[in-house]
Amino acid sequence: MKKNKNIILIKKPENKLTPNCFSLVEEKLNLPRAGELLIKVKLLSIDAANRAWIQGATYRSAVSAGTVMPAYGIGEVISSNSNRFAEGDLVIGELNWAEYATKPDKFLTKVNKTTDLIDLLTYAGIAGLTAYHGLMDISKIRENDTILISTAAGSVGMFACQIAKLTGCKVLGLSGSADKCEWVESKLGIDKCLNYKDPTLTKNLKEVCPNGFDVYFDNVGGSLLEKILYLMKMKGRVTCCGAISQYDVGSLTPPRNIPGIIITRRLKLEGFIVTDFYNKKNKALKILSNWHRSGALKVFIDKYSGLESAPEALINLLSGKNSGKTIVEL
Amino acid sequence: MKKNKNIILIKKPENKLTPNCFSLVEEKLNLPRAGELLIKVKLLSIDAANRAWIQGATYRSAVSAGTVMPAYGIGEVISSNSNRFAEGDLVIGELNWAEYATKPDKFLTKVNKTTDLIDLLTYAGIAGLTAYHGLMDISKIRENDTILISTAAGSVGMFACQIAKLTGCKVLGLSGSADKCEWVESKLGIDKCLNYKDPTLTKNLKEVCPNGFDVYFDNVGGSLLEKILYLMKMKGRVTCCGAISQYDVGSLTPPRNIPGIIITRRLKLEGFIVTDFYNKKNKALKILSNWHRSGALKVFIDKYSGLESAPEALINLLSGKNSGKTIVEL
Repeated sequence: MKKNKNIILIKKPENKLTPNCFSLVEEKLNLPRAGELLIKVKLLSIDAANRAWIQGATYRSAVSAGTVMPAYGIGEVISSNSNRFAEGDLVIGELNWAEYATKPDKFLTKVNKTTDLIDLLTYAGIAGLTAYHGLMDISKIRENDTILISTAAGSVGMFACQIAKLTGCKVLGLSGSADKCEWVESKLGIDKCLNYKDPTLTKNLKEVCPNGFDVYFDNVGGSLLEKILYLMKMKGRVTCCGAISQYDVGSLTPPRNIPGIIITRRLKLEGFIVTDFYNKKNKALKILSNWHRSGALKVFIDKYSGLESAPEALINLLSGKNSGKTIVEL
Repeated sequence: MKKNKNIILIKKPENKLTPNCFSLVEEKLNLPRAGELLIKVKLLSIDAANRAWIQGATYRSAVSAGTVMPAYGIGEVISSNSNRFAEGDLVIGELNWAEYATKPDKFLTKVNKTTDLIDLLTYAGIAGLTAYHGLMDISKIRENDTILISTAAGSVGMFACQIAKLTGCKVLGLSGSADKCEWVESKLGIDKCLNYKDPTLTKNLKEVCPNGFDVYFDNVGGSLLEKILYLMKMKGRVTCCGAISQYDVGSLTPPRNIPGIIITRRLKLEGFIVTDFYNKKNKALKILSNWHRSGALKVFIDKYSGLESAPEALINLLSGKNSGKTIVEL
């Protein structure tokens, strides 16, 4: 009987995620039951959200210790016990950190074989749509808004930076090192990227934007969010997209100025996830594709090779080592 | 030369406000300079916000130690050095905890002598308008919304409760004792009032509203806000009106689930203060007056007599001893 390599979350970390939280095991291949597919995994999307899933229930249930690590990805149907998919089909959806994943058909979507698979994990997938809907439908950005985007070099951040520029905003980014800030400015063409670790961050931001920000597109949460709230304009809009600072830690550091600053500065904080805008997806994809085709919306990826590299890829992402969308190719 | 009794904030409290933070002193009466009025104070509004002003800068600058305690109130012009007001006029605006206040004319408004002065400090003043605009323009309440209102027995809360009922909402209130909850239910006619100090609060709220809340009208902040965020419906709206739990303490207790819960539950938190809706004030006053005239919107006051009672009135309000709007009559 055929074997399957799986990466199991063997224990939940108390603080930072470490390689020894995972173990590569060989198990027997589970054949698809009624309504299920056996999928050969080709590409895995590595996302900060994966760490949040380990921490606890989010918009999906928590990942339990002792189970295979789930991840969004693309694979090929090897064996189908579903009338919706045939052998040889490409599918996208929640797969596993594994060579093969056996999954119910209902959460998977068929991929057109002529599509560039990287596109589906970047601008035409969760990252691009999250940035687009977050800016257009939650932040409701307008030309000449001054917008600050955290994790500017990340998978969502890099698209948010470019989309905000394409919309005519003044765009500032935050990233975690001088090198990454330089990368963001040169590759994404925003007005300025600043190192959020700099102890003079508040002063530096005030120098570039003395009147503060209309919009903060927040992927970080925590004490950085606390700092930025003081820099918002009156009636500023904070788009709550993620909280990477809070996923990989033992104890939380909530912004201490909430709700006080929300009142005195009349702020609006609003959260979303990408699937909330399913009914606007096609329109968004058309716009994103046009921008990409014209060269205005660029894609940068940070690619790892081989299933074994998945833990390292996630750990590096959580410590801010990536520039662009992190992907594991099997 | 005539003397004036003032209550001075002699020191800022490290934790709870205490009577010995204040001192009643007699000083010489300041005569009005150009553009100023000398006002005999008649009624003082005692508000949780007064405590926030002591703590630090809010929507107004902080009250410094060694200065007279400011407060919203109504008084009579004794001497005018302004062409906008004459002796004998009644004025409303920021006065002082004092027998007489000398103030620039620009922040004061003339009061029609036929108006009931208590009305101007209750439903037709800051409390009523704050509740109205908070519900109508920020929470945007609709018929059949399920709404939770904290400090339900307080000056803003009591109007918020009644306005939400008049709009056709299912209304739950929170208050700090069984007696006050009973007072809220019987006087304000809401569906249920629960004691927020009850250790089984979450369970109790779930029993009454198993599907959660569309709107939370929050006057409290802190760990109560943290609890309620978990009880909001998907896309719930949190109207940030005040944070009384955070004004009278040495260290803050911010909600630890922000921004995580905002994202996973797609919440919107929005802050405001009453003056943001100055252009909608007249329409609001007309509606509030009609409700009041018809008997549908009731006014309850918690009245203290004499300037000397102002510190006690504020301290009692901060510890939740009031039911209704706290006023000091001089």
